[in-house]
Formats: sequence, C-alpha cells, structure tokens
Amino acid sequence: MILRYSREKMSSIWSNKSKFQIWLEIEAHACDAQAELGVIPKSAAVAVWKHGAFAVDRINSIEIDVKHEVIAFLTNIAEQVGPEARFIHQGMTSSDILDTCLAVQLSRVSDILIEDLNALLVVLERRAFEHKNTIKIGRSHGIHAEPTTFGLTLASHYMEFQRCRDRLINARKEIAICAISGAVGTFANIDPFVEEHVSKAMALQIEPISTQIIPRDRHAMFFAVLGVVASSVERLATEIRHLQRTEVCEVEEFFSESQKGSSAMPHKRNPVLSENLTGLARLVRMTVNPAMEDVVLWHERDISHSSVERVIAPTATVTLDFALARLTEVMDKLIVYSANMQVNVNKLGGLIYSQRVMLALTQAGLSRENAYTLVQRNAMAVRLEGKDFYNLLVTDKEITSEISVEQIKGLFDISYHTKHVDTIFNRVFGRS
Amino acid sequence: MILRYSREKMSSIWSNKSKFQIWLEIEAHACDAQAELGVIPKSAAVAVWKHGAFAVDRINSIEIDVKHEVIAFLTNIAEQVGPEARFIHQGMTSSDILDTCLAVQLSRVSDILIEDLNALLVVLERRAFEHKNTIKIGRSHGIHAEPTTFGLTLASHYMEFQRCRDRLINARKEIAICAISGAVGTFANIDPFVEEHVSKAMALQIEPISTQIIPRDRHAMFFAVLGVVASSVERLATEIRHLQRTEVCEVEEFFSESQKGSSAMPHKRNPVLSENLTGLARLVRMTVNPAMEDVVLWHERDISHSSVERVIAPTATVTLDFALARLTEVMDKLIVYSANMQVNVNKLGGLIYSQRVMLALTQAGLSRENAYTLVQRNAMAVRLEGKDFYNLLVTDKEITSEISVEQIKGLFDISYHTKHVDTIFNRVFGRS
Amino acid sequence: MILRYSREKMSSIWSNKSKFQIWLEIEAHACDAQAELGVIPKSAAVAVWKHGAFAVDRINSIEIDVKHEVIAFLTNIAEQVGPEARFIHQGMTSSDILDTCLAVQLSRVSDILIEDLNALLVVLERRAFEHKNTIKIGRSHGIHAEPTTFGLTLASHYMEFQRCRDRLINARKEIAICAISGAVGTFANIDPFVEEHVSKAMALQIEPISTQIIPRDRHAMFFAVLGVVASSVERLATEIRHLQRTEVCEVEEFFSESQKGSSAMPHKRNPVLSENLTGLARLVRMTVNPAMEDVVLWHERDISHSSVERVIAPTATVTLDFALARLTEVMDKLIVYSANMQVNVNKLGGLIYSQRVMLALTQAGLSRENAYTLVQRNAMAVRLEGKDFYNLLVTDKEITSEISVEQIKGLFDISYHTKHVDTIFNRVFGRS
Amino acid sequence: MILRYSREKMSSIWSNKSKFQIWLEIEAHACDAQAELGVIPKSAAVAVWKHGAFAVDRINSIEIDVKHEVIAFLTNIAEQVGPEARFIHQGMTSSDILDTCLAVQLSRVSDILIEDLNALLVVLERRAFEHKNTIKIGRSHGIHAEPTTFGLTLASHYMEFQRCRDRLINARKEIAICAISGAVGTFANIDPFVEEHVSKAMALQIEPISTQIIPRDRHAMFFAVLGVVASSVERLATEIRHLQRTEVCEVEEFFSESQKGSSAMPHKRNPVLSENLTGLARLVRMTVNPAMEDVVLWHERDISHSSVERVIAPTATVTLDFALARLTEVMDKLIVYSANMQVNVNKLGGLIYSQRVMLALTQAGLSRENAYTLVQRNAMAVRLEGKDFYNLLVTDKEITSEISVEQIKGLFDISYHTKHVDTIFNRVFGRS
Repeated sequence: MILRYSREKMSSIWSNKSKFQIWLEIEAHACDAQAELGVIPKSAAVAVWKHGAFAVDRINSIEIDVKHEVIAFLTNIAEQVGPEARFIHQGMTSSDILDTCLAVQLSRVSDILIEDLNALLVVLERRAFEHKNTIKIGRSHGIHAEPTTFGLTLASHYMEFQRCRDRLINARKEIAICAISGAVGTFANIDPFVEEHVSKAMALQIEPISTQIIPRDRHAMFFAVLGVVASSVERLATEIRHLQRTEVCEVEEFFSESQKGSSAMPHKRNPVLSENLTGLARLVRMTVNPAMEDVVLWHERDISHSSVERVIAPTATVTLDFALARLTEVMDKLIVYSANMQVNVNKLGGLIYSQRVMLALTQAGLSRENAYTLVQRNAMAVRLEGKDFYNLLVTDKEITSEISVEQIKGLFDISYHTKHVDTIFNRVFGRS
Repeated sequence: MILRYSREKMSSIWSNKSKFQIWLEIEAHACDAQAELGVIPKSAAVAVWKHGAFAVDRINSIEIDVKHEVIAFLTNIAEQVGPEARFIHQGMTSSDILDTCLAVQLSRVSDILIEDLNALLVVLERRAFEHKNTIKIGRSHGIHAEPTTFGLTLASHYMEFQRCRDRLINARKEIAICAISGAVGTFANIDPFVEEHVSKAMALQIEPISTQIIPRDRHAMFFAVLGVVASSVERLATEIRHLQRTEVCEVEEFFSESQKGSSAMPHKRNPVLSENLTGLARLVRMTVNPAMEDVVLWHERDISHSSVERVIAPTATVTLDFALARLTEVMDKLIVYSANMQVNVNKLGGLIYSQRVMLALTQAGLSRENAYTLVQRNAMAVRLEGKDFYNLLVTDKEITSEISVEQIKGLFDISYHTKHVDTIFNRVFGRS
Repeated sequence: MILRYSREKMSSIWSNKSKFQIWLEIEAHACDAQAELGVIPKSAAVAVWKHGAFAVDRINSIEIDVKHEVIAFLTNIAEQVGPEARFIHQGMTSSDILDTCLAVQLSRVSDILIEDLNALLVVLERRAFEHKNTIKIGRSHGIHAEPTTFGLTLASHYMEFQRCRDRLINARKEIAICAISGAVGTFANIDPFVEEHVSKAMALQIEPISTQIIPRDRHAMFFAVLGVVASSVERLATEIRHLQRTEVCEVEEFFSESQKGSSAMPHKRNPVLSENLTGLARLVRMTVNPAMEDVVLWHERDISHSSVERVIAPTATVTLDFALARLTEVMDKLIVYSANMQVNVNKLGGLIYSQRVMLALTQAGLSRENAYTLVQRNAMAVRLEGKDFYNLLVTDKEITSEISVEQIKGLFDISYHTKHVDTIFNRVFGRS
Repeated sequence: MILRYSREKMSSIWSNKSKFQIWLEIEAHACDAQAELGVIPKSAAVAVWKHGAFAVDRINSIEIDVKHEVIAFLTNIAEQVGPEARFIHQGMTSSDILDTCLAVQLSRVSDILIEDLNALLVVLERRAFEHKNTIKIGRSHGIHAEPTTFGLTLASHYMEFQRCRDRLINARKEIAICAISGAVGTFANIDPFVEEHVSKAMALQIEPISTQIIPRDRHAMFFAVLGVVASSVERLATEIRHLQRTEVCEVEEFFSESQKGSSAMPHKRNPVLSENLTGLARLVRMTVNPAMEDVVLWHERDISHSSVERVIAPTATVTLDFALARLTEVMDKLIVYSANMQVNVNKLGGLIYSQRVMLALTQAGLSRENAYTLVQRNAMAVRLEGKDFYNLLVTDKEITSEISVEQIKGLFDISYHTKHVDTIFNRVFGRS
C-alpha cells in the first residue's frame, strides 16, 4: 500500500488512530457487559466511556518499552481513566481485541469495496446499453473469429463483476466475526455473555469456537476473493489495452489536456491506466498465498500471522479499492471508436461468415469433413492472397454445386450474428 | 497428480475415457435439442445415441494428424455414426463441449470432496465428544498457556472443516455451468434452446453470458477454495505433528504391525502421514495462482488456460481427495495419550493459573500493572528456578496482603477452565 | 507433468526404474568404499555389483506392506544378492540415497535443459541475423513508438535466454550435491570417506554439512531459476501472439497441411503453440512457491518436502523441457511477414519521427517544453484527423521559423533509427 | 514495507528524495557525455551540475498536472537550471533514468543485505564454536533420532546463509545494470557512448541490449533470491520456535526487563521474535511471483511492472533487511539451556543407540531384516512401557547370543556420535 495507489477513505481505516479507536470501543462495550454481569462496577464502565482516550504517540512510546502493543494501549488508557482502569480488559487476551478489531476493519473495507463494485456495475451497464448494437469483431486467440457487439463484451464483464460482488458479500460474512473468549478460547476468565454483547454492539457475528484467535481460514478465504476480483480487473484492463493498440484502435482511454504520454515521443497516447491496473492486480493477488500460509498457526495460536496481516490487509484492500475506482473512471470515460470497429470487422474480406457457409454446405448434404475442407481452401486463399471470400465462393464449382449463389449471398448478413443480443441482455440485465 | 497420492474414484473422473464419454453425451443431448428445433433430422439424433461410440486410441492417433482434440473426437465419432454424423456439433464450437465437460467433471469431483469432508466431520465429531473432557494444556507461541480440552481442539477443527464444506458447496455452484453459445458467444449458429436443453440434461446451470468460453473467474474461485481447504488440512496435520513430538507425546498416528519408521533407526515412530499431508497441502495451494492468472484470457478467449487446467484440475482435486481421506484415517485411528496430556498440564508448576491470580489481585483492588508485576515476578521464579507457583504465592507477603491463602488455594482449580466446554460444544455441534 | 506436454528423454529420468537404478549404483559405490575401509567384506561389494538387481513391481508390492520405499527397495535387492546383502546400506539413512539420487536426477535434467537452451539460442541467433535489418515498428504500451528491426527483437530474447542458460548452469551447481552422513548428519555410523567416494563416482560435490538431508535452500534456488526461465519463455511466446494478431499480422506460427485451427471456423490460423507456452510457463512457475516452503523443514528433517518434490520435480522440469523444445520449433519455422512489418511502420503517417523533430527544435533553441508542445499539437492532428505528419510540419509556421523545410525533410529518414544495429549485434553476438 | 518492520538506512534508499537525487546524477552524467560528444554545449553540462536541484513537493505538484513523473521532475529541474535545461535528457526516454536509478537503488540495498548476512554469519560462527560440543538430540519428524551437537545445528545454518550471501552477490550482478538507449533501445537519438559513460560513473555494467527498458528477467531473478534468503531465515526462526517450546526448553529468546509476554498471562515468555520472522519471510516470498509475472511485458515495454516494483522493491528489501538484523540479534543473545539439552538426550532411555546396536548385530552375522526386527521389538518396549533400552537388550537372549553384554555396553557411548564434529567444522569454517 503506497500513497500513489490509495484513497483516503480506505487507507484511513488502516491508520493507528482508527485501530485504537476500535480497540477502545471494544473494551468499553466489554466493560458494559462485565458490569451487567456484576464482574466489575458499573462506575468502571461509565468511566471508560467518559474518560477513555488515547494518544497514538504516547502508545508508540510505551510500546518501545514493553514491546507489546496491546499492553501499551491499555497503559495509555489507564493514564486517562484512572484507578478504575484496572477493570478494563479483565479476563480478555490481546487477541480478543486485535481480532475483533480486524473484523471491524475488514467489514468496513468490504463495504467500500462492495460500493466500488456497485459503482463499476452502474457504469458498465450504461456503456453496455450504449453499445448494445455497436458491431465489433470477436476474437479468439487474438485472431478474428465472428462478429459480436461491444455491448456484449461489456455485458460479459458486467456479469463477471456482479459475481465478484456476490463473492465479496460472502467474504464479508466470513470475517465479520467477534471473538472474546480468553487466552485459549475456553472463556475461563470471561463469560460468553461479554462476547455476545460486544458482537451485537459492533455488528458482528460471534465465533462459535475460537482458540486464542479467530481461525485464519476465514481471512484466507477473504484474501482469496480479493485475488479473484483483482484478476477480473486485470481481464478488463487487458481488453482495453488490446483494443487501444495502434493497429486495432477501437477504444482509447481518456486523456486530459495537460497529460503527457511520453517524455521522448510527443505523439503517444498510451493505455497507461489499464497497464497500471494490470500491475495493481498482481499486487492484490500476491497477498493470497501468505494469507493461506497464515492458516497454519501452531496450537492455540502463534503470532506469525500478525506481521503478515499488518502488511497484506492494507495492501490488498487499499490497492483493490484504488484499482476499482480507477477502472470505473476508465470505463466511464472510455472513448469508443465504433467506426474503426466496423473497419476491423470488414478486414478479413468476409471470412467471418466461414462457419455459416460450412453449416450451409453440411445442411446441403456434405459431410462435415468435406464441408470443412472446401471452406478452408477458399479461406486460405483470402488470407494468403488477399482475395474476397464471397467472390471466391461464388466461383468455386464444388461449392455452387451444393448451394446457389443466391443462397451464398444471403449468408453474408451481419444481423445473423446479432439476433440474440436481446436474449443475452435480458439474461444479464433483466432487460434489453 | 501421481498414483501414489490418488484414489481411483477421483482420478478416473479425469481419464480420457471419462472425458470423451461426457463429450459424447453433450453432443447427443445437443442433437436432441437441434432435432426438436428442426435444425437437424430426428434420425440423426437417434443415430448418435444408438451408434455414437469412440476409442481413446483412435482419437489420439487422429489428433496427431489434425492437432485438434475435438476435431479428432468428432472424426472418430463420425466413423461410428456414419453419414448422419455431419449433423453433430452443428453451430457449436470446441469450447462448448470442452467447458461444459469440465463443468461436469468439476461437479463430480466436488461431490466427492464434499463427501470426503462429511466423512471427516463425522470422525472429528466422534473424537471430539470422546475427548470432550480430556484435559490438555492450551499453547500459544508453543508455550504453555492455560488448560483446555482435547475435545475443544478437535471441535475447533470440526468447525473449520464445516466452513470448508460450505465453501465447497458454494464453489461447486460457481463451476456447475453449461455454455453452448458458439464461436464468440452470440448464438449466431445455434439457438439458446440447445444450451438450455443440454444444461438441464447434464444437471448444470446455464452461463448467462459466455464469450467463446465460460469465464475463468469461476474456476479461479473454485481452485482458491481448494487452496483454503488444503490449508485447513495442513493446520490439523501440523497439530498432530506437534503433539506427537517426543517431548510432548500427547498423540500418535496409528502404526501398523509391519510398518517401518526408519531404515536406520528401528525405534522410531514418526508422524509421517501428517507430514505428508503438510506437503500435499502445498501441492493443492500451488494451483491457486495459475488459476487466477488464467482469468485474464485475451478477448473472447485464448487457449493458454487449457494446458494449465489439464494439469491443475487433476492435481488439485485428486490430491485434496487423497489428503482428506488420509486425514480422516489419521484422525479416526489417532492414539491419544491422555495421561501424558495430564503430565504436561502439570509441567509448569501451576503457572497456568497465573492469569486467574492476577485477576483476583485486580479484583482485590490492585491496579492491573501492579498485579501483573507481582504475578510475573513469581512466575519467573517458577520458570527459572523450577519452584512451585502455589508455594511461592502463599509465601509472598505482597500477595497474601491482598488475597488470602484460602482464596489462592481456590484459584488452583482445573474445573474453572472447563466450565464452558458444554456451551462451546452446543455452539459447534448443537449438543453437548 | 502429463504425457501431452512431455518428452521421453526427460520424463524417463523420473521413472521408478531410473530412480531405483540410481539407488542401486549409490549403494554399490558405498559398498566399495565401506569395503575399502574394511567395514564390510570386499566380497559383499563385489556381490552387490554382480547380483544387485531389482524389479519395480516387486518393490511396490513390498512397500504396500512396510510403508517405506527405501526399505522395500533394500528388501528386494537382498532377495537378489543373498546373505551378503546385510552389508548394504550400513550406517546410511534413507535420505542418503534419496537425496543423492535426486541430485543425480536434477543434474541430468539440468543437462537436458541447458542443451535445450543452447538449441534455442542457435535458432534465435540465425533468425536474428536473418532479420537484422528487417524494419519493424517498436511498440511501447502497445502503441507505435519508433522503428527498430525484427533482428533486434530476436537479439533481445537471445540475450535473455543466454542469461537463463547461465543461471541454469549455476542452478545445476546448487543441486549436484551428494550427502551420505547418516541419520542426523554426524557420520556417527558411517565414515566421511564413503560420502567422498560416492560423490566422485556419481560426479557430484559433497555437501559440507547435512542434517539428515541436503538442505532445501538449494532446491528452492533451482526451482526459482526454472520459474525465471519459464517467464522468459512466456515473454517470447507473448511477443509472437501479439505479432500474429489479425490486425498486426507480422508473423505467423507454422501451420502444417493437415492441421485444423478451429472446429467451427475453417478460416482460422491461431498462435496456439505460443498460447500453450504461456500456459506451460504458469505451470513451471507454480512450483517455485512450494519449493520455497520446503526449505523450512523441522529440525534435522521432516518428510513434508517429499510429496512436494515427487510432483514438482517432474512437473517443472518435464514441462520446461517440452516448452523450450516447442519454442525452438516455433522460432525455427516462424513465418515472418516483413512486408506487413513495413506497412505497419508507415501506419502512423510519419509520427515515428516525432522525437527527432522535437530534438531538432530543441537544438534550434526552443525550450524542451515548447518543442514538446509544438510537436504534440501536430502529432494529435495526425492521430485524430488522419493527416500526414510531414505535411503538417512543413506548413506550421512556428516550426518552420525554427527549422527549415529542407531540414525537416532530412529528419524523415529510417536509417537514422538503424545506425546502431551493428553496435548492438556486436555486443550480443560478438559479431554483426 | 511498514515502519514497524523497517530500518532507516534501508528505507531511506526508497525515499523520493533519494530517487530524484539519483535521477539528477544520471542526467548530469549524461550531459557530460553529450557535451563530450559535442551534442550539447559544455556550458549546459556545467549548468546542470551547478544549478541542478529539485524539491520533492514541487515535483509532486507538477505531476498532478502532467501525470508523468519524469516530465514533472525535468520541469522542476528546468526551473532551477534555466534555459540550458533544454539540453537535459536529450535523446533519452524516461525508462533510461528510471531503470538505471532502480539499478542503483537495488545495488545499494544489495550491499546492505550482504552486510547483514556477513553480520549474521559472524554471530552464527561464534555461537557455533561456543556450542561445538554441546550435546543435543537430533530430531527427524520431530521425533528423537540420534545425538548431534548444537554447534552442528548452528553450523548448518551458517553454511546455508553463506550460500545465501553468495546468491545475493550473484543477484546484485544481475541488476547492477545501466541502460540509456532511447525509446525502443536503438540509440536512434543518443549515442551508445552516453550509456558507457553513465554506467562507469554510476558503477554499473551496461545492458548489452535493452528494448525501452532493462529486461525484467534480471529483476525476477533478484527477487527470487530474496525469496530463498527469506526461506532460510524462516528455517532458523522455526528451529528456535521449536527449541523454545515449553516441553523442549533448550533455548530461549532474550527477554528484556520491561518486556511483557502476554497481556493475560504474566508467566509467559514467548518466541515472538522468531514467530515474527516467520511472518516476515512470507512477506518477502510473496514478492517473487509478481516479479516473475513482470517479466512478460508487451513488446518493447508496457508499464504494468512499474506499480508492482514501487511496492515490492521496498517491501522485499526493507523487510528482509529488518528480518536479517532481527535474526542476528536473536542469535547473538539466544539463551541456550545446555542442561536441558542433556536431559532431552536422555529422555528416550537409550533408544538413540538403536541404530548402532542394529549395525553391531548385522556385523555379527544377522541379516538386516532380522537385526531390524530384534531391535525394533526392544525399542517398542522402551517407548510403550517406559523401560530402559540397555537393560532390555542385555536380557534379550536372541541378542546376547549374537553380541556380548560387554559389547553392548560399549555401544552406549555418546562420543561415538561426536567423533566427526571437527571434520564437519573444518569443512564449514576451515577450522575446528
């Protein structure tokens, strides 16, 4: 996570200030519950809410001494709350607040990421309908295949990001979990009621069974989902990069007036945002493996996951938020050269109709193999000698002996390829 | 995927024979639909069901020539079906059968993996109840913390594998998807009805929008889930390995009469199954990254994912199935040395009660910091000088001035640590 | 590792037969050394060489019983050698032969991979010289930048694969290591002389200090190098895929007479080999992470690395060998459309000279910023309105007031871009 | 890279200030060369050295406008240098300074990491000699095997880190590379002499052939090496964690007076530094995969690697530096409980001599299988019934009929296991 690729709204969730604030709330809610149970005086709980406060610098300086962040925090709080501070954190272990806090933070970042995806979906839907009927060549292996529409391309990504949003909603459930169960999860020194109370107060679910910590398979799953979302970002970014190639020139990222493409070549307009998204996707994805390695903590816990999470949690979430916002902007402002799309569709001299011709030959009685051979022979003459496919076909006796010239003419019809666009749009958007 | 770590039931799903059989069924169902639409003669569909057959060797030998597996398959089928074979595969593209077949295979392996997890859950539940009250030290950082029970340890893993099962059920939904939409997903040459018909016949859902292929974010998600499950396998395997250490000796993998532990050291009984599971987990996990890279195919598709999936799909699923079965056997037959567990609990001379003593001091009016310091001072004397914690406490004036010897005595009570075991079991198993 | 992507020469190294043969040789050489030391009778060593033999099936069937592969092997050998077999493996531990055998296997595969790279280098050098002066547009961000030659492109990959070869030579040294040091590496039961003798006989270096095993940082380094080589394969494969795009059409993979590009679209010729190489690269790369996780074995060893290596060693090496051979064939037979390269160079209406114009303006006295702005203004008119760059420049008063039309004309000279081709070829190939 | 896990010396190399300073030096050296060539006036080069200066804030604010960091930098420099600034960067492209700067930064971090390893080696050597003869049980599979010494354990890690240092020295060579070759690497607008001059001035080697950039296989190799070093860090950290377990208690991390082990359990002293190192290793390792994906840039370059490197270069190097320093401190101050090591050696009632007994039986004429069976039978009685191995052997008629009681007694001798310690130390340290 670096400033260049971060947005304040997201990165602030990972600030120390935000973290300690959540800790304080957890401790205060826990005191409420303990007071209700009669374990600590009600006045203590009141005091925590009233006087509980912290200073990040002070905590840091205590930590240098005690080498334990939670104890440093509690010491600083005690400085504010006074003698009744001894009732704070009773029966709890550090992980009780660390893990519950992480749950709150991850829930909040999930909410932002879900919003990000919703914003992206709105843009993709708008642009998909805008280009529902913008004819564009479909490409497999980077080679012209058959026509499709740019709207369908966008609809495909829309659908993928909708799945991503649903996955993220599931992933949020995985980690929106509270555990306050003591040193080895037995509630020896703290009643389960405290956990229930805090979880409700912080809008989390309780962990049915924790060790000292919330099990890390939940977090591994969460980061894995971020990795998949990042991969979907990369797929769309790669599509833009391809379509912006000089020779293809079907779309172009917006380019502000003052922007400069190259320090050496003033003529250039590069898809740098999409390329950047490709790199950012790698950064999000790289967090998946350490998150999975973190699952295998020793016994009731070891602390190896801690340093990992301090880095990957901000890195993955801040980067993905930035990437989704950037992608949304790219798609929102994307310049679409539909005339060039049409030029490219025509580039292969009619070869895009080859399959339809082959099917017509088969329908006329030829075996699949013979039909394939006949069509391939003419197709290769188009590709290698630059001839026109239609002209070749209507002069090929072996073909015209099977299907008439009139029939061949009818096969060369672009609407043949777009007749089901509405069907697909209805499937994707529920309207067309 | 290698023989040594595979089970027939699972690996057979990935055989060529199984694959071609599914292809044939997809083609035959598609013919039914095409015949119903009147696109091909009913007799053709009948012929495919009646005469459709293949020989793996023959397909392989044709493929050497045409360098295209699906065309080789269709050629071989045509040899059996005769002239009406020309109606097979009409308007379809290779990916229509490749991807739909992969969906069928992945659904089947999912079913097995879900069964595997169910079997594991049964064993874990049985053993958890068996050891519900078997006292065992809880360890954080590998260091004795406070007592727990071995039943709780097993319940924790039970819960984790239940989450794994639920994730796998979700993952199955991600990939149980049929797409028959033609060369670039426009249904130009094939009616959407065919897709609907085949998807029902093969018990799959339709892909709302495909390009040439089913989008690979689905598969990435699937493999990511396998990676998480593998990590959970490794966590339990690592627990066993730790508990079997010579110095700990709380459990031991079963060891058959004829088994040999070491070629050089006849006395050894090693947790080799659990170590093996640790390695197998790495193998499953390594497939996650390529699966995510596969998402980013170019335009309507490129074929780079194909070689990846040919390897990772069998590797990840066969290995995980083997691992789950092995883990189930290990847990089923695990020898539990509960007497040694008790010995270990006592090892720290009462230090496991340190937190309770600290809490009692705080309740008695000491500040958290002072209570901590007093307890830590005595605790260190236990650790470094081998003294008994209880004896130290009752002779420490600063402590006895706060809490009476009688009170201290009452704090040294193991049942204090197990009083909520039933609560937790109820949460996990719905019974206790 | 699957048959489809493997070559016999490489995969046979990983067969059980090959492995047991190496084991036998190690044991026999060890017997020689032990006999020389007088630890065992000379007759025993002679007997091993004379009667030592094994049957893979028999070993497998013994292993089912004893659950230990090395003991199964030794039992089978003993069946052949007779009573003197008791002198085999004296003082050795299984890892002594397992790790030394792996070293032999990895050395052999390294030799093949180095040969593969040499063969690739030969082809790349030939084709680089063939196209030393074939003008081609250079592209950054997928956008036309300035001209280069296809020979330079190939020379760049040549240089990269030369680095790969050097890395592989280093990697071979990392793992060509023999260890015969007993159960925990102390030579308690075996003299270091045995290790020295066997290492010489098997053309390996001795491990200065082993635990029970050869430390796995060596293997991690080896697989990391394979991962880098695979990435370089992917870079060249990706270049081919880009250049074969329909709109670019500068190169094409060879396409055999009988080959079929698409089951549905007979006109297609797809860069499927290069796409396949992209996928294979992912498969090689995925082995790096488990190899690194394998480094962290517990104490003197645990066996978790074993299952990992059984899979990743064949997978990574067989796949990379296949990929290198395939890439060599692709490059050997690559069809180069130099006329299309020229067409593409001209596509931007002279914009490729924009930097040179800017530099001339700067030399003439304009500030960098002003020169940039002037050139960018005209460049955008070319891009957006399809005008000719030269014609725009010579009618732009602000420009012609700085540099004359004659001077501008002189700037539009392709040889300006190729004047250092020989210099670079000399750096790369030592000749030009 | 986060503050908590970073050291100033290393992190400052990655500051913007440090980066822009290197850029300035590269530009100034390039001006010297251009002036020497007569391409620009000597006065311009002098002006750059004299007036060249920048302000990080000013560059950032220009970048917001032009969206190009290098152009922002050049604009800021021009503000200081005045009109002659137009001669700066002539014929160069942004990557010329970006990549050369990265080379300088990576060289500097390599120097620090190499120093770090040297410091670690010094500590490991000292402690290895200190404990050369400290008897300790060797463990395979976490199970007691045969005795070794703690010095040998340390020597093994010493040797591994020596290999790591050598790898790092190689890795440094990979990336200490200068490229100044213009927009597509053809030197069209800049003479190769500039590259030569700058590379000498910055103590780098020239890149024989660059595209627009220095090829990323070099960087992939560099990060892969960091990943291997991190894995070696984790191996030693894991050893410490194991040895500090409560039941093992052979070593302990130093623990400062004011440090607190647990907020809840005052008695605890946890190996938190080693656990932290385990996590940090995961963080370094996670950078390997994106670095490898970065190799595959499109054509002469795309910019996807840039965001990746902005994150992984600081993350991997700063984290590894911190980890190496922390590990050095841990090893330097490690508390070794040699008495406990001796207690543990004795724990198995003599079973550590089982191999020696088996060998003696074989020497006496028993077959390997029979010897194994006899020894295993007695060994199991020790393990399961807690009996003493020696006592069992001398009362086992089948054994004493082969070897005498006297002979058996002689086999139970610890010096048998340490006789080659000097040999090994000589191999590792060149002295013993």
